[in-house]
Amino acid sequence: MIRLRKPKIVVLGAGYGGLMAVTRLQKMIGVNEADLTLVNKNDYHYETTWLHEASAGTLHHDKARYQVKDVIDNSRVKFVKETVVSIKKDEKKIVLANGELEYDYLVISLGSHPETFGIKGLKEYAFGITNINAARQLREHIEYQFATYNTEEVKRDQRLAIVVGGAGFTGIEFLGELANRVPELCREYDVDHKKVRIICVEAAPTALPGFDPELVEYAVNHLERKGVEFKIGTAIKECVEDGIIVAKDDVMEEIKADTVVWAAGVRGNSIVEEAGFENMRGRVKVDSYLRAPNHEDVFIIGDCSLVINEEINRPYPPTAQIAMQQGITAAKNIAVAVRDQGEMEEFKPDIKGTVASLGEDDAVGMVFGKKVMGTKASFMKKMIDNRALLMVGGAGLVVKKGKFKFF
Amino acid sequence: MIRLRKPKIVVLGAGYGGLMAVTRLQKMIGVNEADLTLVNKNDYHYETTWLHEASAGTLHHDKARYQVKDVIDNSRVKFVKETVVSIKKDEKKIVLANGELEYDYLVISLGSHPETFGIKGLKEYAFGITNINAARQLREHIEYQFATYNTEEVKRDQRLAIVVGGAGFTGIEFLGELANRVPELCREYDVDHKKVRIICVEAAPTALPGFDPELVEYAVNHLERKGVEFKIGTAIKECVEDGIIVAKDDVMEEIKADTVVWAAGVRGNSIVEEAGFENMRGRVKVDSYLRAPNHEDVFIIGDCSLVINEEINRPYPPTAQIAMQQGITAAKNIAVAVRDQGEMEEFKPDIKGTVASLGEDDAVGMVFGKKVMGTKASFMKKMIDNRALLMVGGAGLVVKKGKFKFF
Repeated sequence: MIRLRKPKIVVLGAGYGGLMAVTRLQKMIGVNEADLTLVNKNDYHYETTWLHEASAGTLHHDKARYQVKDVIDNSRVKFVKETVVSIKKDEKKIVLANGELEYDYLVISLGSHPETFGIKGLKEYAFGITNINAARQLREHIEYQFATYNTEEVKRDQRLAIVVGGAGFTGIEFLGELANRVPELCREYDVDHKKVRIICVEAAPTALPGFDPELVEYAVNHLERKGVEFKIGTAIKECVEDGIIVAKDDVMEEIKADTVVWAAGVRGNSIVEEAGFENMRGRVKVDSYLRAPNHEDVFIIGDCSLVINEEINRPYPPTAQIAMQQGITAAKNIAVAVRDQGEMEEFKPDIKGTVASLGEDDAVGMVFGKKVMGTKASFMKKMIDNRALLMVGGAGLVVKKGKFKFF
Repeated sequence: MIRLRKPKIVVLGAGYGGLMAVTRLQKMIGVNEADLTLVNKNDYHYETTWLHEASAGTLHHDKARYQVKDVIDNSRVKFVKETVVSIKKDEKKIVLANGELEYDYLVISLGSHPETFGIKGLKEYAFGITNINAARQLREHIEYQFATYNTEEVKRDQRLAIVVGGAGFTGIEFLGELANRVPELCREYDVDHKKVRIICVEAAPTALPGFDPELVEYAVNHLERKGVEFKIGTAIKECVEDGIIVAKDDVMEEIKADTVVWAAGVRGNSIVEEAGFENMRGRVKVDSYLRAPNHEDVFIIGDCSLVINEEINRPYPPTAQIAMQQGITAAKNIAVAVRDQGEMEEFKPDIKGTVASLGEDDAVGMVFGKKVMGTKASFMKKMIDNRALLMVGGAGLVVKKGKFKFF
């Protein structure tokens, strides 16, 4: 086969999946084989799985991000700091906020958007913990409420009320950090701890749906001991300026709170929908090689992709673990396509474990098929976090950004 | 003279004046001579003269306060943590938020309130830097604006605009800290420094009125180099939700800013007015022994007192320096009154110097009659701050709370 020009590989997004794909591709593909471009809105990668800490204020956001240029081979990869506006798949073009890019092979790893299920007022009034900007805004909002409480003649206790919508993985992890942060905030701003309320509202009949009941009980007990109130089987009907309206068994209740955090689910990126790929809530059901249907040049990984867990006939949840494994497979398969030799690899998720943190020194989860709780689980969680750093950036990044405060 | 019972000495307020009076009285007055009570709203004393740092975020507010119980002799002084509601001078009673106190000798050292000169909207929309609560609220408000800037699709540059009303002593000191803090905030929240505006509005024809013109020029140049815009001879006509309306030579201008700080003057405490003492803006012109007119049992010191500088026939400005000197004189004179022997001392302010800080390492002022600028002035300023600690709490307090970062 004679090529007229080097093919162009473009990766959109420097999240877990995209960064893993690029760091693998830069090793696999020779400089004469293809051009490699990475597009990302920010010049940094952030640890989505650590944002609950940055949002609560228990970890500085700079610990939860690192520069893209520090982990890519800058002589090999062209990094474009730009916002992706749209994907023109039939013209094989990417429209950026300032400019355009052409591709021969595309990796879409643009991550997720919050899923608000059409609940009125959430977009306007609720805070999210979906990126660095949102995390530090939420942290500062909470601090401002505590700082303002004592300045007012008539004390507004709802300033000290924080509603967390969702007791899933993200909600529980955020609650764990918040429960540890509140005593610090009380000391910092001379606020009586008894005045503070943390209320978790979950529509499902249990916290941590999908987790083993023993682990759920452990997690809920742990958080209740630290002052979290759970309203399980309770749906948020509306978010208003100063709180939420919930319903349980058709009984409506208004909860006054100046901070409402939405931590109850994500959907795929809307750019994927707008590009015209067949999708479900922004997630594209990819083929076994991670390619978009009818588009063999487009690989979709991470939160924008949908992979079915055959055992339970339901999609795998969007996790960093799967995104990174997909990044590796996508890189291999693109190398096969570029060289037009070898065989593509089918994607098979290898779920090593799932551990939900409950704060600095506690956690619950499944690791290699076994239930873990307490400090052991917390240690495992930190190892999982460090492993992600190792896979993308090597030992140097682990030393620089890793978590080593084990006990 | 036969006393039927021990006289009660009550000191209201644990600011510079009150705390100095109490710490002197506890040494001077024997346990059998009088009961000594100190009333203060908070269980801590705060350094009013350091609040510009806590407000800008360059010094943690806990560094700008210390516990009252750490500097008083708790076996000698009864400390009542209470809010003073009113003074019934004819009944010799103090009404507290919860309870009442009787006195034979009273020291009023309740400090100041902001003077807004009737400017519309200031109370509702402007931040102050008058106490610990206000300082940390302002700090958090500014941080929240920076944290929110990048979360918005359409960038609102007025989030990054800070108006400081007043280029007097407090305004200039706050501007010095703010100019140093802004680059830190820009780094922390990924904000372009060029987007930030700091605008100082002063109605008088000069910054730092009363200061030597050479010092004023030095201070203004220093702050302008750091990005502060001065609008001198410009009056704030109104403060609105998203900025201020100013006028210069009858030309009106609207300045959009999400942060407006009022640093342009104080008046005496309104409790003094309501108590029925003859006063000017809450300040009582005391006799040469610091007693209220027609009330020989009431000593008024600090920002609630008015002492005329005969040289220029104008009142001395309300400063920590004068308040502390008054505290010493009031303590001596109360000892004379309690014992009914000796002679009271006339109060003579001894102005050692006035130094306005321009941030961590620069300042301007007069010390022992000489102009000082730059690092030398900054060193002097820190010595003045440390001296106040030494006078109230001894060497131990200086070590614990002093300023030693000289260069």
